[in-house]
Amino acid sequence: MTTAWTRLIRFTARETGGKKVHIGEPVDPQLDVGLAVLNGTPVKAYEISGTSALDYRATVTSRVLTVLTLLSPVDAKEVGVARFLGLNYSDHAKENNLAEPKYPVLFYKPPTALIDPFDPIVVSRAVQPPEEHLSDYECELVVVLGRLARDVKESEALDYVLGYTGGNDVSFRKHQTAVPQFGFSKGFDASAPWGPCLVSAKAIRDPQKLPIKTTLNGQVLQDGNTKDMIFSVATAIAFLSQGTTLLPGSILWTGTPAGCGFARKPPVVLKHGDDVRVWVGGGIGTLVNPVEEEGKGAVRAKL
Amino acid sequence: MTTAWTRLIRFTARETGGKKVHIGEPVDPQLDVGLAVLNGTPVKAYEISGTSALDYRATVTSRVLTVLTLLSPVDAKEVGVARFLGLNYSDHAKENNLAEPKYPVLFYKPPTALIDPFDPIVVSRAVQPPEEHLSDYECELVVVLGRLARDVKESEALDYVLGYTGGNDVSFRKHQTAVPQFGFSKGFDASAPWGPCLVSAKAIRDPQKLPIKTTLNGQVLQDGNTKDMIFSVATAIAFLSQGTTLLPGSILWTGTPAGCGFARKPPVVLKHGDDVRVWVGGGIGTLVNPVEEEGKGAVRAKL
Repeated sequence: MTTAWTRLIRFTARETGGKKVHIGEPVDPQLDVGLAVLNGTPVKAYEISGTSALDYRATVTSRVLTVLTLLSPVDAKEVGVARFLGLNYSDHAKENNLAEPKYPVLFYKPPTALIDPFDPIVVSRAVQPPEEHLSDYECELVVVLGRLARDVKESEALDYVLGYTGGNDVSFRKHQTAVPQFGFSKGFDASAPWGPCLVSAKAIRDPQKLPIKTTLNGQVLQDGNTKDMIFSVATAIAFLSQGTTLLPGSILWTGTPAGCGFARKPPVVLKHGDDVRVWVGGGIGTLVNPVEEEGKGAVRAKL
Repeated sequence: MTTAWTRLIRFTARETGGKKVHIGEPVDPQLDVGLAVLNGTPVKAYEISGTSALDYRATVTSRVLTVLTLLSPVDAKEVGVARFLGLNYSDHAKENNLAEPKYPVLFYKPPTALIDPFDPIVVSRAVQPPEEHLSDYECELVVVLGRLARDVKESEALDYVLGYTGGNDVSFRKHQTAVPQFGFSKGFDASAPWGPCLVSAKAIRDPQKLPIKTTLNGQVLQDGNTKDMIFSVATAIAFLSQGTTLLPGSILWTGTPAGCGFARKPPVVLKHGDDVRVWVGGGIGTLVNPVEEEGKGAVRAKL
């Protein structure tokens, strides 16, 4: 898909007193917007006309705004449906002691799981203590669809992509292994931070060569590349669109590489006050999420 | 929850030329609205003020309308999230040769799966021929939540229920058993007819004593009762609301009793031109859905 913008962010602005949600294109095309905003650097963006990444008539204007709060690139109501692939990197299947799947493994998270790029990841009371419930991170490439897709060919599947961003598919392994479906274990509130930049499909022509990382309190724990996906973005879209309408704005999370906490010895879990970061290359940038165990007080993302 | 209405339907009306969606309360409290509409009987309903079952200020007016098209009780956009329980009747777990689950087994269907009470169930090209893909029916009691629920106690869980209706969780068993998550196999377009009446929680005080049936081309193939659920509606809401916000309008399908087609010898599958009906007691009524194999021509619900 062709859009007037290359790298889109959604945000509130200083100039409008934080009262209005804008979309914009960062003035500096190289900037890691997430880190810069956290750093207190004034991040400038050309306002994009229109109110949504899904508005194709939107153009990049010459009005410059300053980011106050950085939001996920699409409002949860416009996302509607968040699809996730499980076991989509062979090294992650291996650390799960599971065979590579023959077909894409699809599950969903509800929109109430989605949070903004610096929001706290919540470990709710229901999954405390984290040492027992094995709260875990999963860095992922996230695909935003821009056109209605149904029964699309693999060779044409990427034409339906609006852009790419990043995400952290926070998981609670005890519940995940207790029953055969992931609906409950993957569906907790505030378990899916995503963003920060939506890089257009015209700028990322090949989504299968992006580096992707997770760091926890400064230590790199996942260090992968989207070339190692078992099912490519194009294969997954073509497969999942069989007899199934994928709506514009819906998102597809594409699985995580090896290095998850539960597979480490000893296991690594997400605890109150932790700093977990997901970085995806190609201009997508960094998500910085503090971990908050519900009831233990508020936490804030810090550089 | 207390509403001004007892039994709600959503429909277009003859009086407004089919151009507007209304909600109403059938004048005859005993009528199986689904069968009556199909039969050509003029079904009269008192119009309910407001545009949605979720509007608590809505009252039953004295204006009488005549049903033209019967719709599912809540618009898919207002539903947002459709949760489904798997393996929630012990006799169905047994016909699957699976042990009873220790916790509720949750999966999702996307809103594009939801269809109206007489719409065709579609067997898309991707899952033809049905004999190979094992297209199957599952009658279910469907719960509509009326209030935001999070961390609710089992003893108070039913206070969050707006009302109850019926549904058919159409399933394709070949894909369902090919990968460990149900996301793809259960998510096809037009695989979840639901309705017709939404009976308020004040009228159904105990959702665990409702008869529930499936008939296929006139033959009763499922004949169960919600008393046989492994996890009751209240238990499931309390469990699923742990650390997870269940939004008003979201729906919970509560599993199916024994008698599914794939477990029969020889297997029974849903084929082009079949007539499949789900009936739930308590005033909920009958869904009548013809089966359409994509590409084989249009089908219509008939009495």
